[in-house]
Amino acid sequence: MSENQPAIRETFRMAMRHIASTVHAITALHAHECHGILATAVSSLSFDPPSLLVCINQAASLHSPITQAELFGVNVLGLDNRDVAERFAEARGAERFSVGDWSIDHGAPVLLGAQSAMLCRRVDCHTFGTHTIVVGELVEAWHRQNGAPLTYYDRSYIDISAAPVSTL
Amino acid sequence: MSENQPAIRETFRMAMRHIASTVHAITALHAHECHGILATAVSSLSFDPPSLLVCINQAASLHSPITQAELFGVNVLGLDNRDVAERFAEARGAERFSVGDWSIDHGAPVLLGAQSAMLCRRVDCHTFGTHTIVVGELVEAWHRQNGAPLTYYDRSYIDISAAPVSTL
Repeated sequence: MSENQPAIRETFRMAMRHIASTVHAITALHAHECHGILATAVSSLSFDPPSLLVCINQAASLHSPITQAELFGVNVLGLDNRDVAERFAEARGAERFSVGDWSIDHGAPVLLGAQSAMLCRRVDCHTFGTHTIVVGELVEAWHRQNGAPLTYYDRSYIDISAAPVSTL
Repeated sequence: MSENQPAIRETFRMAMRHIASTVHAITALHAHECHGILATAVSSLSFDPPSLLVCINQAASLHSPITQAELFGVNVLGLDNRDVAERFAEARGAERFSVGDWSIDHGAPVLLGAQSAMLCRRVDCHTFGTHTIVVGELVEAWHRQNGAPLTYYDRSYIDISAAPVSTL
């Protein structure tokens, strides 16, 4: 642990604010109820087997469901799913699922109009600090060819499909 | 494991291609030599303590150094560090560090002109599939106020600072 924790924490916060983050709705079904949160701390892990990880705060409403249910959903929101993102931000519990076309037939809530949706089997959990790293192996996946992902950068949603390609 | 692995893998690849990824140079010093790779599978983990994780292929040249060295560097490349990204892509081993202003005084290679740079103490390693999740706790961090991160989307580098803010 560094002796300069407050300064490091503030620099870390600024560093994270100034990278582009895709907005995901992470979901699980538990005790017949839909649970979900918005998350940007998501990463692909391996292509063999296809797998990814999500970092979930232990204080989040989703933490208990996602660490108990067999499956969880990783829904990559598109620009046109911004109403879903705003619903998740405003509502609590199952009320978060009142906007958007959600299917629970697959074992975890899947947003049918998402940019991409990945249904994962939880295979590992690793705790560090305030968070748990939840590792999932894909069991089903959907991807929409058109559209752009909802992206968060410097406290705004941006349309990266309209960002200019960088040239040297 | 799903019976439909090839289709899932291809859908997963398309899903990952169509999200914006910040380009990081992950580095370590081992046996007095600089090691580094470009990576996009990086995520913040916790603010208490400030920590992040990187997913490293076990076949990558950095895997052995990063799992043995005490410290590693997470350098968030800026648009104006694209020459560093291209050097990393073209060269091998310590030759990757021949472009850019690199400091090794901190215990792992830090790019002085990076968008952000975070020096981490390795605190956990978790293996899954072809990759290892390396968890690091920040011991030093730097952030540059101006500039934009080098961002990869749909096989191109894009300038997200020029992306329009999305409105409903």
